[in-house]
This record gives sequence, C-alpha cells and structure tokens, in this order.
Amino acid sequence: MATIQDISASAAINILSVLGFLMGFAFLRLQPVNDRVYFAKWYRKGIRESPRSTGAVKNIVNLDWKTYVMFWTWMPAALRMPEPELTDHAGLDSVAYIRIYLLGLKIFVPIAILAFAVLVPVNWTGNTLDKNRDLTYSDIDKLSISNVPSGSLRFVAHVIMAYLFTFWTCYVLYKEYEIVTIKRVRFIAAEKRRPDQFTVLVRSIPPDTDESVSEHVEHFFCVNHPGHYLQHQVIYNANQLAMLVEELNSLRNWLTYYETCYQRNPKTRPTTKTGKWGLYGKTVDAIDFHKAEIERVLKEEAAEREKVMSDPKSIVPAAFVSFRSRWGAAVCAQTQQSRDPVLWVTEWAPEPRDVYWDNLAIPYVQLAVNRLIIAVAMFFLTFFFMIPIAFVQSLASIDGIERVFPFLKPVIEMDRLKPVIQGFLPGIALKIFMAVLPLILMAMSKIEGHTSLSTLDRRTAGKYHFFILVNVFFGSIVTGAAFQQLHKFINQSASEIPKTVGVAIPMKATFFITYIMVDGWSGIAVEVLRVVPLILFHLKNTFLVKTDKDREQATDPGCITFHITEPRAQLYFLLGLVYAAVTPLILPFIISYFAFSYTIYRHQIINVYDQKYETAAAFWPDVHRRIITGLMISQILLLGLLSTKTIGKSIPLILLILPVLTFWFHHFCKGRFESAFLKFPLQEATIKDTLERATDPKLNLKAYLQDAYVHPVFKGVDMEEPPTVEEEDKSSIVSTKRTTNRTSQSNSRSTSSSLRPEIVDESPPSV
Amino acid sequence: MATIQDISASAAINILSVLGFLMGFAFLRLQPVNDRVYFAKWYRKGIRESPRSTGAVKNIVNLDWKTYVMFWTWMPAALRMPEPELTDHAGLDSVAYIRIYLLGLKIFVPIAILAFAVLVPVNWTGNTLDKNRDLTYSDIDKLSISNVPSGSLRFVAHVIMAYLFTFWTCYVLYKEYEIVTIKRVRFIAAEKRRPDQFTVLVRSIPPDTDESVSEHVEHFFCVNHPGHYLQHQVIYNANQLAMLVEELNSLRNWLTYYETCYQRNPKTRPTTKTGKWGLYGKTVDAIDFHKAEIERVLKEEAAEREKVMSDPKSIVPAAFVSFRSRWGAAVCAQTQQSRDPVLWVTEWAPEPRDVYWDNLAIPYVQLAVNRLIIAVAMFFLTFFFMIPIAFVQSLASIDGIERVFPFLKPVIEMDRLKPVIQGFLPGIALKIFMAVLPLILMAMSKIEGHTSLSTLDRRTAGKYHFFILVNVFFGSIVTGAAFQQLHKFINQSASEIPKTVGVAIPMKATFFITYIMVDGWSGIAVEVLRVVPLILFHLKNTFLVKTDKDREQATDPGCITFHITEPRAQLYFLLGLVYAAVTPLILPFIISYFAFSYTIYRHQIINVYDQKYETAAAFWPDVHRRIITGLMISQILLLGLLSTKTIGKSIPLILLILPVLTFWFHHFCKGRFESAFLKFPLQEATIKDTLERATDPKLNLKAYLQDAYVHPVFKGVDMEEPPTVEEEDKSSIVSTKRTTNRTSQSNSRSTSSSLRPEIVDESPPSV
Repeated sequence: MATIQDISASAAINILSVLGFLMGFAFLRLQPVNDRVYFAKWYRKGIRESPRSTGAVKNIVNLDWKTYVMFWTWMPAALRMPEPELTDHAGLDSVAYIRIYLLGLKIFVPIAILAFAVLVPVNWTGNTLDKNRDLTYSDIDKLSISNVPSGSLRFVAHVIMAYLFTFWTCYVLYKEYEIVTIKRVRFIAAEKRRPDQFTVLVRSIPPDTDESVSEHVEHFFCVNHPGHYLQHQVIYNANQLAMLVEELNSLRNWLTYYETCYQRNPKTRPTTKTGKWGLYGKTVDAIDFHKAEIERVLKEEAAEREKVMSDPKSIVPAAFVSFRSRWGAAVCAQTQQSRDPVLWVTEWAPEPRDVYWDNLAIPYVQLAVNRLIIAVAMFFLTFFFMIPIAFVQSLASIDGIERVFPFLKPVIEMDRLKPVIQGFLPGIALKIFMAVLPLILMAMSKIEGHTSLSTLDRRTAGKYHFFILVNVFFGSIVTGAAFQQLHKFINQSASEIPKTVGVAIPMKATFFITYIMVDGWSGIAVEVLRVVPLILFHLKNTFLVKTDKDREQATDPGCITFHITEPRAQLYFLLGLVYAAVTPLILPFIISYFAFSYTIYRHQIINVYDQKYETAAAFWPDVHRRIITGLMISQILLLGLLSTKTIGKSIPLILLILPVLTFWFHHFCKGRFESAFLKFPLQEATIKDTLERATDPKLNLKAYLQDAYVHPVFKGVDMEEPPTVEEEDKSSIVSTKRTTNRTSQSNSRSTSSSLRPEIVDESPPSV
Repeated sequence: MATIQDISASAAINILSVLGFLMGFAFLRLQPVNDRVYFAKWYRKGIRESPRSTGAVKNIVNLDWKTYVMFWTWMPAALRMPEPELTDHAGLDSVAYIRIYLLGLKIFVPIAILAFAVLVPVNWTGNTLDKNRDLTYSDIDKLSISNVPSGSLRFVAHVIMAYLFTFWTCYVLYKEYEIVTIKRVRFIAAEKRRPDQFTVLVRSIPPDTDESVSEHVEHFFCVNHPGHYLQHQVIYNANQLAMLVEELNSLRNWLTYYETCYQRNPKTRPTTKTGKWGLYGKTVDAIDFHKAEIERVLKEEAAEREKVMSDPKSIVPAAFVSFRSRWGAAVCAQTQQSRDPVLWVTEWAPEPRDVYWDNLAIPYVQLAVNRLIIAVAMFFLTFFFMIPIAFVQSLASIDGIERVFPFLKPVIEMDRLKPVIQGFLPGIALKIFMAVLPLILMAMSKIEGHTSLSTLDRRTAGKYHFFILVNVFFGSIVTGAAFQQLHKFINQSASEIPKTVGVAIPMKATFFITYIMVDGWSGIAVEVLRVVPLILFHLKNTFLVKTDKDREQATDPGCITFHITEPRAQLYFLLGLVYAAVTPLILPFIISYFAFSYTIYRHQIINVYDQKYETAAAFWPDVHRRIITGLMISQILLLGLLSTKTIGKSIPLILLILPVLTFWFHHFCKGRFESAFLKFPLQEATIKDTLERATDPKLNLKAYLQDAYVHPVFKGVDMEEPPTVEEEDKSSIVSTKRTTNRTSQSNSRSTSSSLRPEIVDESPPSV
C-alpha cells in the first residue's frame, strides 16, 4: 500500500509534468507561426488575422519578453467570458459540455468539505489499524473507513453522510437539469431561422409501382398535411460518389506536394510507385502519374455522377420534407403518419451539417437485426476483448515476431534494440487497442443506423461509458480480466457481489488517486497542447499551402470529442461518489481534475474548437442518467461494504432505501425534463412563426429551403467541411473567395424551379 | 408422487364436477325466469324480450322436454358466429380477448403433437428411473425428462425441441400480433363518429391569476391550434356529489324494499335501526326513517350541486378539448404543447364511458410520488403478504378467537361445531385474501392516477400477473413463503437460481396438472353459471322491481373481468411453455383449458357480457409481452435444469442464445406493432375526415360534442351505468322510457349555447 509520501511524490511528478505541458503551451501559443493552431476558432470566424500580416509581430519567433511574463493570463481570460456571450460565440453544446465539469465542482466541493469535517476525524480516531500491527497500512488508510473497527457505532456517521451526499447530489443534478433545460429552451427560442426548423426527415417510404419516390412523397404529404406541406428533397445514394470526390482531393493534394518539392529542388523530378500509398509497384514520375490519375478519377466521378442523377435506383426511400411553418414541421415530426408504424417514419431533420448521409436508406427490419448484432458484439467486446489482446501479446514476443516476419530478425536481434522491444511489446497491443477503441465503438454505432453525427456521438459515448465502467472501474477493483469477473459474478449470489466489490474498494484508493493524476490531469494538459494538429498544420503549411484559402483549410480547429471525453469524465464522477464516504482523501484530486478540465475546455472552446454541429445540449439527459447510475453504484457498494463491517441488518436496510429513492428521482427527472430534449413544443413553434410573419412577411421560404438538404458532393464543396448555415449572415465579415463562390452558386440554383444537382456537375468542385 | 391412476381419478372427479356445472347451467338457462340473466346482452341491446311476454313459453318452469335434450347446443352455437359479426355484436375488445385463448390453442396444439411424437418416446426409453429402484416414481415421471440419464446424448432432442417450440411460439405470436393490429386499425377505421375521436384530455393546466381555467384553455388552444380548436369542456370535481347521488339511490332502493315488504305483509310495519347498515342504534319505523333520510340527502345533494357549480375551486385544472377534425385531435394528442413538459399534458380522451373521473385532477409531482409509494407497496404486498396472513391465521385458532371475542366461546365450544371450525379456520384468511386481492390491486392502480377504466384494468392485470408469477408459479416450485424465496434467491448466485428452480420443475408436474383442473377447468365452469348475478337478480326482482325499466336495471350483464382472468390465463401459458420440453403430459390439460375457456367466453360474450368500454384491443401489447416473459422464463429454467443434467457446457451455452433472441424478438415486435396501439396515424384521421365531409357536409359538430364529456352526475342518469354512446343509432330499436327521456334531455341541452350543468339541476335525477 502506498504511503502519503508515495502519493506526494507521485503528485509532485505529475504536477511538474502538467506544469511542463502548460509552459510548453504558453510558449508555443505565443509564436506567430502557431497562431492559426491555437486561435483556430477566431480565424474560422474571420475575426482574427495572422499577427504577421497585421504587423503586430514582425518575426517568426516571438521575441517580446513581456508576453512571456504574462504567459498564464490565458487562464483567467478563459474564465472571464460570461456564459451568454460564450453561448453566442460557441453554441450551447459547448457551454453545456463545460457545465459537466462545473457540475463536478458543484457536487464534490461541498461533499469534500463535509467529508473532511466529519468523516476524516471519525475515521482517523477509529484506531483499528494501529492495533492490528501485523497489517501493512499507511496513513491514507488511517483516513479511510478501514480504520473504523467492525461493529462500531461510528458507521452511523457514514450512513448519515451517504444520505446527505445522495440528497446533495440529487439536488445539484435537479438544479442543473433545470438550468440546462431552460438554457436549451431559450437557445432554441432565440435561434435564427434554420432549415431544420421547417424540415422533417421521412424514412421507410414504401415503394410504389406507379409513382416515383418524389411523387409519392409529394402526394402523401399534400393529402395528410394539407396547407402545411411546402416541398421536399429526395436523397440520392451518393456514397460511392463521395468516395471518388475524396480520392480526387487526396490526389490533388499529392500533386501539389510533388510540384512544391520540384519547385524547391528543380534538379530531380520526384518519383513515386504505382501501388497503394506509393509503397510498391513500378517507379514512375510522380507529377505525371498523379496528373494522369486525376484525369482518370475525374472521368470516373463524372460517370458516377451521371449514374446517380439518372438512375432511379440511386434514390433512397427517404426524403427531407419541408413545411410552411415550424408548427407544421413540429406536428409532422411528433406524430405517426401511416397505418403501418414502420412506414413513413418521421423525425426532426438534423441540421444539414449534422446529417450522416450513409445511414438514411436502411429499412426497419435490417435496423432491428443490426442492433441485435451490435448489442451482442458490444457484450463480447466488453467482456472478452482481453482474449484477442492476449493472443496478440503472445505473438508480440520477440520470438513470435521473428517467426511471422523472419526478415525482421537482424533488426530485432541488435543488442541495443532487443531489451527495448522486450519491455515495450507486451503493453503495446493493449495500448493500441485502447487508442482505437473509440473508433471501433463509433463504427459499431454507425452500423446501428443513426442518421445524425450527434446521435452517433451520443451512442458511442454510451458504449464507451459501459466499457470503462466494466473494464476500468470494476476491472481495477476486482482483479482479473472482465470475462473472469463475469464468471465470478454469475456464480456469486446477488447479495455477495456488492460485498466482494465493496470490501475491495478502500484498498484501491491509492491506485485510483494515481490514475486520476496520470490519466486525468496529464490527459487534459496534453489536450491543450494540440500536438497532432500542430504538426499536421506545419506539414501542410510547408508542402501544400499556396493561397490564404489553402492555409485556412490546413488548420483543423477540431471539436469537443464528446464520445471520448464525456465517458472519461463520468469515471471521475463515479470515483468521487464511491469514495466520498469511504476514502474522502480522493476528493481533492477529483476536484482539481474538474477545475483544471473546466478551465482548459473553456479556453479551447473560446479559442480553438469549431463544433461540427449544434444540438442545443441534446446530450444532457445522457449525462444526467450516467451520473445517476454512478450514484446508485456507489450506494450499492457502500451497502455491501458496510454489511460486512456492521453487526445486525439495520444499517444495510437503511441504506437499501437510497438506491430506490435515487431510481425514483431518475424517473421523476425524466418525466419532468426529458421531453424538452426530445420534442419541440407547439407553443414555441407558434411563437416563432408569429414573430417571423410579423418581422419578415415577404420571406420566400421555398427559395430559402431550396437546397438546404442536398448531399454535400452535389454542393461542390469539400466533403469534410459541410457548409455552415449561417453563411449568409457572415458573408459580410468573411469575404474569402470560397464563400462568395458558394453564395453565388446557391443563389443561381435557387432561381431554378426544381432542385437540379446537375447544375453542380457543370462547375467541378472548386477545391 | 402421484401415479397415473391418481391423476386419472382426479381428472374424473373434476370432469364430473365440470359436467355438473354445465348441466346446471343448461337447466337454469332454459328457465324463463332466468332468461334476463343468461341472455343479458340481448336484452341490453333491446333485441330479445322475455319469452313469457312474447308468449313463446307460458310457464315459469320450462316444461318443453325437447329443449332439454338439445341442452348442449349452446356450445356449437357459441362457436358458430363469425368473427366480423361478433366484432359488430360485442366490440373488438371482446373478440381480441377470446383470441387470447385461441392463441393458446394455436401455440400448444402443434407443440403438444411434436412433444408427444418426439420427446415422450425419448423420455420413455430413457430408463433411468427403472434402474434406481430406491426412488419412488410413477409412470408420469417416466414420461418426463427425469427419466433420461444424466449426461445422455438424448438431451440434444430436448434442446432441438426447445428451439422449435421457441420459434413456433414466436411465429404464432408475431402472426397474432399482426392480425390483432390489422383488426384494430380496421375497427378504428370503420368506427362511427364518436366524441373521443375529436377530443383530447388536457391535464395540468397551469393556474392563471387573470383568467379562469375555462378562458385560459380557450385562449391557449386558439393560439396554438388555430383553425383546429373547436371547444372545450371544463371538469368539475364532483366526487363528493357523486357519492351523495349514490347514497340517494341506495336509500331509494331500501325504501322500495321496505314498501314492498309492507305491501306483502300489511300487518306489521317494517323497522330498522338508525346506525350504519341498520346494525345498531335506535329501532325506528323503516319507511318513515328512509323517507326522512332521502329528504335530508336530497337537500345535501342540492347544496353540494350548488357549491360545485358556483365555486371556481371545484373546477379542476383539466379539460376535455375538442377539435374541428380528427386530424386536429390526433395532432394535439401526440404533440407536446408547452415549454414545460409537465404542463398542458395532452392525451387522447378516453371514450366518455371509459373516463375515471376521480383521477383527473392529480398534479404531476403527486403522481410521481404516488407511483413510488405504490411500487414499494406492490413489492411488499407480493413478497411479504404472508406475514399478516400468518398473523391472522394464528389469531384464527379457536383459542385466539376465544381470547379476542370471549362472548363467542359458548358457540365455538359446541361439540359439533368445534372440529369444523378447526379444519376450516386456517385456510380462510388466505382464501379471503386471495378473493379480495384483485380489489386491493385495483385500489392501488387507482392511486397511481390513471384516467380511464381501461388503463386501470390493464395496470391491475399487470400487478396481478406479477403476484401470480411470484406466489403461485415460483411459490409452488420453491416451497416456502415468497419472502423466504426472495431471501434464498438474494443469497444464491445468478447461475444457481435457474438450477434450483429448474431441478424442482419436473417434480411439480402432477401438482400443476391438478391445479389446472381445479382452478382452470372448474373456475371457467363456475363462470358460465353466473351464480352471484343470478341470485342478485332474483332478490332484486322480488323486492325492488316495479317497472320494466327497474327490471332492466336489476340485471347485471357483467363484463370481461380482464384484470382477473387475463393474468390467470397467462399462468397457463407459462405452465405450458415451461413443461413443454420437460413433462409434455401437462399439455393436453392446458389445451383443454384453453379450448373450454374459448367456448365459454365466446358464449358469454355473445349472450351475456356488456362491455363497459371499448378500447379496440388496446391491451394486446400487454398480453404479448407477458407471453414473451413466460417464454423467457421457460428457456432460462430449461437451461438451469439441463446444466445440472448434461456434461460439459456446450448445451447450456446453446440454450443461452434463446432468451437473447426472444428478447430481441420482443423489441422487434414492439417497434413493429406497438405504436398502432398508442398512436392514431394522421393518414387514418385524414381519410375519416375527408369521408365525413363528403357524406355529412352539414354536420353540426359543436352540437354533437356539446355534452359528451359531462360528469355523469350532471347528466341525470344512474352513476353505475354511464350513457352508451351509440344511443342515437339504437334509439329506433330500443324504445324504453329511459332512453327517450335521455335523448330528449340531451337534445334540449344541446340547443343552449354553452354547457350549463345547471339545466340538469332543474330536472332532478330521473332514477
């Protein structure tokens, strides 16, 4: 068991490394060359321009010593922007996201004060560990519940505290849910006109022998929503086309790269190999080869575009249907249309940037089958992922590598490399797995058939949370791989499980303190540095960038990776709740994690991140539910722990009330607030409609919605960066070539009577 | 263990008693005096008249011997009416209800054939029990899985059969769900104009300082459903008034009774006591006393009526809002109205007969609290009901009674009575409890705050099903009271529970066979006799009936007691599924139960029952879900049983797939069909609206809906028998005084511009 000295040493090391990261960040962000990476959001908004071009800083390296002295100012600056302004600046998703960390502070600061005031003295004076001199223990354990003798009356304090902690947590959760709900309602009420307010996504349109999909949709909605239906937009299956467009972009980038190389070194023409990624095949002249390739793919793309536009089979049985008013759309999205509930399924259209186009065509039965498969796969991934990892690890011994790749033998056998590889190999398979896990989970969510990026993020977060819960939390407490735990749990009685886990909890406190420092603190510190985008930017800047427009595209502002960071934050909520009544010493570490995260993410949201979509905090019910889950786990584990330490059954029985009450609280909150996140009240719709009729009576809604929901490949813009909706409002500020280009394009198109993506065909992608 | 002889003897006794009941029924139903009891439905419909008044039969006792010879003809007659005609005659609820028993036949007949063809030979030739001569066993056990030696390969047959049974059950369930859904959709599409098609129940109307509830509702819906809102009906809290009206009816009945007594025996005037139920207090002249009492209550009622009408506090924050079209109502019922999801909560209005008026005023928070309380109470009722019963039983010994009621001592101590009381007492507390259990559960459902009788029935059925599952099914298999089982289960591992229960299952086969005969067969046979309504009818007929109208009211046609009979039928589904692969011998008994029930209920539905409401089979998703639950329980128990009997883990693992697939099947069906039972598709609404506009363009909807949703006490009709909606359509056939009376009343009222229940006040209740 680690002593206070061990923990202090570890904390010191971690604090130093975090400070190192922060110093590095402070230095890097002051260099003008990195300006676009660390202030990406402002560039994206068109408000900030390069310090060199404005003349503020002349040199490549910032030599102004004053700015270095003030390097820490970004922290208070990040905290200073008031929340309404932040909502305007970055959207409600971002604001609600950082409120998760704020919620952590709100929950745990009072709990920590209470725990240190009451539980620490109670535990410290328990004096059990002093008496049992044969046990190894540390001062940390003397602060924990382990120091209280079995059967002591002192446990009443822990029970009372458990009640107080639960009530406080529920109170804060309720208040926060209420605040976020009000913010959401206000945000939606204050939103500008957006195409998704008028639009509904219709899926599973039944085939009709006499009519095309488009005619069928029009007739159906003209009949069933008379007076409200405005127009619709059929959806083409352009997945193949999108892949070709992407290939084209990649080829053009490589061409630019080779041309730049040739310009800088005109003596030798660059060469490449014809195989995939230039790894194998015949060596040819790179510039000529890529030009030929571009020519070839351009033809393919044109053919595919022709095919998609002309072949009725490439129209998927789904459509975006727009209404004359928000009221009409709200009605259609919330009601059932057809006698058969799996036909004409309607839901709110995601905003255009948020649409996940690949999944729009999946029929109901296949969806159900896919979800079954993914649920089973998720079960096996969570509980049995160690089996393939262990297999790879056994292969990943030096002998294994030499067997599979004999040609590597001379390299590996080098005296210096061998010990490094030996020490490094066993862990690497697991590390790689953990790194790609979010990608795997995201792929699984995609198979489930969700139609928007935001839903994909939320579902992936749910899966990741489950994985972390089983493999990090329970996996660390009950040693052994997850499937061994599962086996143990199945063969153990329902009342024994909480006991087994509960008893192990106090012993793992030091492990989790270290985990919080290494994974939590340092993870956040690394986030602020943005190493990968920084390197990528400089690489692109050197080899690809020719114009200002290129440079703008070379910066990847990134966004909140909700599906990765939220489940991780949930682990700290869980740890805090579980250890609050057991080993309160862990709480300061968790509080500093939340405070640090809050500051960093606030800074990143203000200066860097550019969200891909805006859902007005639609993820909050998930966050709320997961914290409630953590609270219930903590209650049951405390129950298990205390039932082994107390005499009689009264204390466990008193604690049994807590999970029941918490579960009820969850249902109460669900009924009270959740529908604000799922439905759009007609009252709001009416208010917005009335307001709009008053302020803008001559609005041509048809023209406005004309091509809001066209697949991005038909819009002639980069696939990775779907058009932002507010472009019209911003075009006065940002006047790059691309935006004007796009605006004029959409204007020209809106004059044509029906949507004709062929028009896009005539002007090839401008990227 | 019971032998085949024992079972045969028991079966013979039960069959004889069932035949006795049927003979009794055949005799009684042919007596003209009982005609109104056994053909209540036809009288209610006005199609049948008393055989004596029509002159078909002259005598009080039927002396026509031919009718006795043909006594069994009611059975084929009951089966003969085709289903569409039956739907017209009795409604879809009734038709769907008897389809539950038909579903039982569809599931179990093929399963029984397969089981007898494959499993019985496999088990019979297992020869384990012959070898273990020290075990007591019977021929029945030789037919069961117990006869197969442990580790035998024969278990493969059971596993294959379990798969086949599951697939067959799921197939039949799917088909049946589909049929019922189609029937429901067609039924709703074919329905005549009904007030509830245009009406939505709005609850939790927020208080407004400036406006009355009525104005507030009108303004809200005028703004948020412009062009669709028609009118609304505020709801008065008339619970107190309804109680007074009921008391008045009761007093009037007693007055009639005493007057009849006096007429028949003019020598002595009847007397009564002034206390409750005439049990204690001063002895007075009964006729004068009741006349005075009626006078008093009439005054109270008038005062209360005055108070309800004038006091704004007696208007509850709920209203029935009607729309100009079904489309408008469908939209309002399915959408969220207000920013705050717990205000302006809308749902389809139940049909007027179906409204449970007492619960309309409960606010959201209280609802949530009530549901928590009821959930906890339900848990304790299910698992700990034996504790008070055991307490009462201990009191109910002869000594106990003598202690509590010493004055009874001389009676009890009589030599003849003592042994009877001793044998009778211990069981009686449990019997009484089981008899009143449905009432207790119904009271609990009422506290939960559901707004319609049909929902109350469905929720009560759910609770009763859970109780039967725990206390009858598991309680019979695992001996000991439910809370002891619960304790055992909590302290047993998750994999041990199915083993413990599974192993006990084959041993309980004979018990359940007897149970099916005693509870199932005889229970149904008693149902057809209608003993209680028969006696009540004759009592009322003798003492209360003066006019034809009174006689009509004296008949209680009854209705399907869904909340009692459906959970009981579910037990037989469960038993059939559990024993299909274990002891197939039980299947013929279950099949005969379903066949018998099907015939009897079909007969009752045709001739007797008069449903209180019509929900178009809204209960089917519950039925489906409970059968699926039974199927999953059967799979898990078979898994537990086989894992103790087979070597290795392959067979249990193969069986583990079944519950997963079944669960997925449940979700699939839910998504596929359930919304047809919850929502009303706009397509249907449009079709019906269009049709109506074409056929009846001059319809005055406002007049039609004027007083559809007035509390029955304001309608001036008997509380226990709310007005049927189809009265207008039927008034040509039935021309009793009451109906004309009511129709003219409603006509006179519909001419007034707004609903004025005071009008009702002027004409006192006509009953």
